[in-house]
Amino acid sequence: MDRYEQVIELAKRRGFLWNSFELYGGTAGFYDYGPLGSTLKRRIEQIWRELYVIHEGFMEIETPTVGIEDVFVASGHVGGFSDPLCECKECGEAFRADHLVDKIVEIADALSNEELDRLIKENNIGCPECGGELGEAYEFNLMFKTSIGPGTGRQGYMRPETAQGMFVNFQRLSRYYREKLPFGATQIGKSYRNEISPRQGVIRLREFTQAEAEIFTHPEEKTHPNIGRFEDVTLSLYSDEAQQKGVIEQMTVREAIDNNIIAHEFLAYHIALTNNFLQRVGIAADKLRFRQHQKDEMAHYAIDCWDAEILTDRFGWIEVVGIADRTDYDLMAHAKTSGTELVIHIEYDEPKMIEQFVVKPDMGKLGPLFKGKAKAVADALKELSSEELDKDEIKVNIDGEEFTVPSDIISYSQETVKVSGEKIVPHVIEPSYGIDRILYCTMEHAFEEEMVAAEGEEEEEERIVLRFQKEVAPVQVAVLPLLTREELMNPGKEIAEKLRNRGLLVAYDDSRAIGRRYRRNDEIGTPYSITIDYDTLEDNSVTIRDRDSMAQVRTPVDGIENVIYDLVYGKKDFENAGVKL
Amino acid sequence: MDRYEQVIELAKRRGFLWNSFELYGGTAGFYDYGPLGSTLKRRIEQIWRELYVIHEGFMEIETPTVGIEDVFVASGHVGGFSDPLCECKECGEAFRADHLVDKIVEIADALSNEELDRLIKENNIGCPECGGELGEAYEFNLMFKTSIGPGTGRQGYMRPETAQGMFVNFQRLSRYYREKLPFGATQIGKSYRNEISPRQGVIRLREFTQAEAEIFTHPEEKTHPNIGRFEDVTLSLYSDEAQQKGVIEQMTVREAIDNNIIAHEFLAYHIALTNNFLQRVGIAADKLRFRQHQKDEMAHYAIDCWDAEILTDRFGWIEVVGIADRTDYDLMAHAKTSGTELVIHIEYDEPKMIEQFVVKPDMGKLGPLFKGKAKAVADALKELSSEELDKDEIKVNIDGEEFTVPSDIISYSQETVKVSGEKIVPHVIEPSYGIDRILYCTMEHAFEEEMVAAEGEEEEEERIVLRFQKEVAPVQVAVLPLLTREELMNPGKEIAEKLRNRGLLVAYDDSRAIGRRYRRNDEIGTPYSITIDYDTLEDNSVTIRDRDSMAQVRTPVDGIENVIYDLVYGKKDFENAGVKL
Repeated sequence: MDRYEQVIELAKRRGFLWNSFELYGGTAGFYDYGPLGSTLKRRIEQIWRELYVIHEGFMEIETPTVGIEDVFVASGHVGGFSDPLCECKECGEAFRADHLVDKIVEIADALSNEELDRLIKENNIGCPECGGELGEAYEFNLMFKTSIGPGTGRQGYMRPETAQGMFVNFQRLSRYYREKLPFGATQIGKSYRNEISPRQGVIRLREFTQAEAEIFTHPEEKTHPNIGRFEDVTLSLYSDEAQQKGVIEQMTVREAIDNNIIAHEFLAYHIALTNNFLQRVGIAADKLRFRQHQKDEMAHYAIDCWDAEILTDRFGWIEVVGIADRTDYDLMAHAKTSGTELVIHIEYDEPKMIEQFVVKPDMGKLGPLFKGKAKAVADALKELSSEELDKDEIKVNIDGEEFTVPSDIISYSQETVKVSGEKIVPHVIEPSYGIDRILYCTMEHAFEEEMVAAEGEEEEEERIVLRFQKEVAPVQVAVLPLLTREELMNPGKEIAEKLRNRGLLVAYDDSRAIGRRYRRNDEIGTPYSITIDYDTLEDNSVTIRDRDSMAQVRTPVDGIENVIYDLVYGKKDFENAGVKL
Repeated sequence: MDRYEQVIELAKRRGFLWNSFELYGGTAGFYDYGPLGSTLKRRIEQIWRELYVIHEGFMEIETPTVGIEDVFVASGHVGGFSDPLCECKECGEAFRADHLVDKIVEIADALSNEELDRLIKENNIGCPECGGELGEAYEFNLMFKTSIGPGTGRQGYMRPETAQGMFVNFQRLSRYYREKLPFGATQIGKSYRNEISPRQGVIRLREFTQAEAEIFTHPEEKTHPNIGRFEDVTLSLYSDEAQQKGVIEQMTVREAIDNNIIAHEFLAYHIALTNNFLQRVGIAADKLRFRQHQKDEMAHYAIDCWDAEILTDRFGWIEVVGIADRTDYDLMAHAKTSGTELVIHIEYDEPKMIEQFVVKPDMGKLGPLFKGKAKAVADALKELSSEELDKDEIKVNIDGEEFTVPSDIISYSQETVKVSGEKIVPHVIEPSYGIDRILYCTMEHAFEEEMVAAEGEEEEEERIVLRFQKEVAPVQVAVLPLLTREELMNPGKEIAEKLRNRGLLVAYDDSRAIGRRYRRNDEIGTPYSITIDYDTLEDNSVTIRDRDSMAQVRTPVDGIENVIYDLVYGKKDFENAGVKL
């Protein structure tokens, strides 16, 4: 068993996650979160909200997962969100064409369909299932399609990302923030990708959870007021240049900005924030790097793009977050498709005097000449340059109709005019998180097998422990009466209730031997266990056991909820939690 | 403007909710939650979790929104989840056939398609759009369809309810709970209903959020250990009988149980819990009732079913929660479709001696006679009654093949046997909440227009206030420096940070006149506003303003976070929050 298998085995057995639809044989690309997995997921999401929504102030919105065609035409997903597909001519099975040749060439996903076909033919690659001949590669769109309403209905798609929900609401959002840049909005929700044949378990899902922020900034103001917070933080950067050398570089945020490794301060701040988040939820610092998109893999419109990558045992480095400066691409695309201007009006502190070329048609003469079209003709004239206006006959085209305007009814000049503000199309900085992958990685990085001797025993035995970050653990404290006896169970239940009221995640468990219950809680990563025994009835104290060291302290029942709260949230060390046993 | 229009106008203007895809002209049945609406929704969901997940202990799970066909064949949705549809033969527009006749008959949704056709013909009903002739009514399945994977793929559906995710995971859940009944699981997530032509705005959505609990109970044990908690609570019940009289009855939970109005204590507990939840999030007690399903509307397998209904201004009483005893219907349906036993093994405290009819085939003789089929023949014989065995020639049918067994190689008798346990199929109690409708109703019931005089002014002016429950409000406290000056803004920002760290939802706002900011916060339902003025700099105190009474008190900055926390969570009255101004 490799580490992936070990983690998934534990995850299934203890109620973290498992394949969906097991009762009906399962379907690749779908996973269920059980009681513990779902709680773990909500803890991770909650910390994300704390950072992005509460601290950064990017308000959360919620838009539908079903989308209409216009949105995804504008976003480019209808045209370009696809993978190359090859079908077997004999058994009909479908395969990712680039996966068929990924042992032959290095970057198979950069090949065209023609190149893929050639490679498949040259290397005599047959159907991996039946050996049959493979058909030609073609583009398969990865959006789940559906139909809205009856009959042929309206074409709908399950959204491939939450981001478009923020873009199409740009006008509402800018009004909410009173047009003050920068502002941002976030969304945590389901997205969908109809994978051709997902092969990587929980790492490649057809339905998954994203947490995305779309931050609208002034195109020319990409400094960050709070960069000081992260300036001295060291990042593991795998820049475009470093990738040529094959070496991950350690560098402070300030150095990365000053050396132009990261394009600008605003993006650097957000890379550092991602670094902060991932380590806080439990990603090992030495298995985390930021990889810059190489020139040829980066979207043509983007200024800079970095992926947070996490090292896993089976799959190597996997991408879990993308952080990009997407410029004005998304807003311009929706403005074009919808025919609506998506801009911010910026008032200058003081009006500016600027040089401007001004065209002044004589409306008194244009009116009688062009009647109802006079206004349109005047507007068209204002768009012309001095060269175009410097002719005897000036021609303008309005809705396909050509109008000829005598030059003597137009004057133009270079003038100094007072301008009180301007319209700008903001740039978008987008951190985009894949929550499911991060969740899996917190489990893999927390997983440990070790040989330990139980208290008072000589012989060592294996123990599995998930060393979750305390605030992320789905159970933060277990309450365990030593024996299944009323006199111990009742005070146990009271303690559990006190802990719950303090806002902690509590499990109360009174069955089976105490050693087994400790093991169970180690396996699900519970950082602290409280044991109620017969001494509790005499002196009103309990034992707290620390998951990681297995050390124990004795502490009074009064105020136990505050002691555990402070332990979980890092405000107290275990040594100071009571009298060492 | 009726109340619905007023609420929606406010909701759009202030950032609670609005039609999705506005930029592209919108699509009926989809709504976006803006910054405030999304926060309000999460507050409501959080209180639901507190009650069901933390207090009741029904652990939350998360299963995909895309489902495979088997699941919905078993659940009956493929066969029966539909509405009658009528298309215009001329313009092609589609309509709910029952809606076309709902002004003619009282309960149009109970009619068959033939009856609908007859009524449409008899009353000369034409297309509401173009007046054209309407085609015959047919059943339109309301699940959104999609295809999983490439090619023709595998038929998939967007789930019409979250419930099936719990049912198909019954085995995993019963293992997690160590087969101890009752146990439950919950899910809060998106569900989908491809409405033919949704006409009721946010009340009838094609994509909506459900919160559902599936509680598995022993079929013969439907008392509830904590019924004492609710026994004396008075409910507004509109029982089957009361509906005949047309009178809503006020009755305690205990009376409803004792008079057999509600089928049993376990269901009564959950109706009371729903009552508790709805009032806690802000539904007016006098606009809330529980309506029992009438015999002819209740599902054939259900023992009892009640809907929580809320009175709204435009739509009258609308269903927001269903609470049903669904018996073993769902588990039996999945057991049958999947061919897997879905049961709980119950160990008796002491083995029971029971009378049993026992058939004992003589395997020594059956073996040579039936060879490989001997085991199957023996099993078939064990299922027979004494009458069937009391014949000269006994016939059994195995996979369509008939076998004749001589009677002398079988003996049978009535015996007393020791049984240590039994297998049972649990019954399901299901509370199913529609979160979007509840959210809308909290806004409508909180909405108030009143005439008030601003401080020191004679003239009254209109004020709109959302009187949200304090713990539900999307902004719990606003921090407002009196003027946009550094010396007031800085302490304001510090106070906002302290409040945030106490876990409160805070808005900091320093622009425009203080009166306008109060009005804005009244409109979004902020229960408390803190004003920082020049006295603050002298004596380190601030003013707290109460949304509902508009009264003000003066209180020290030190400890302000605890004062506001206690006010919001009902641990302190406003009169005791400081010195009255």
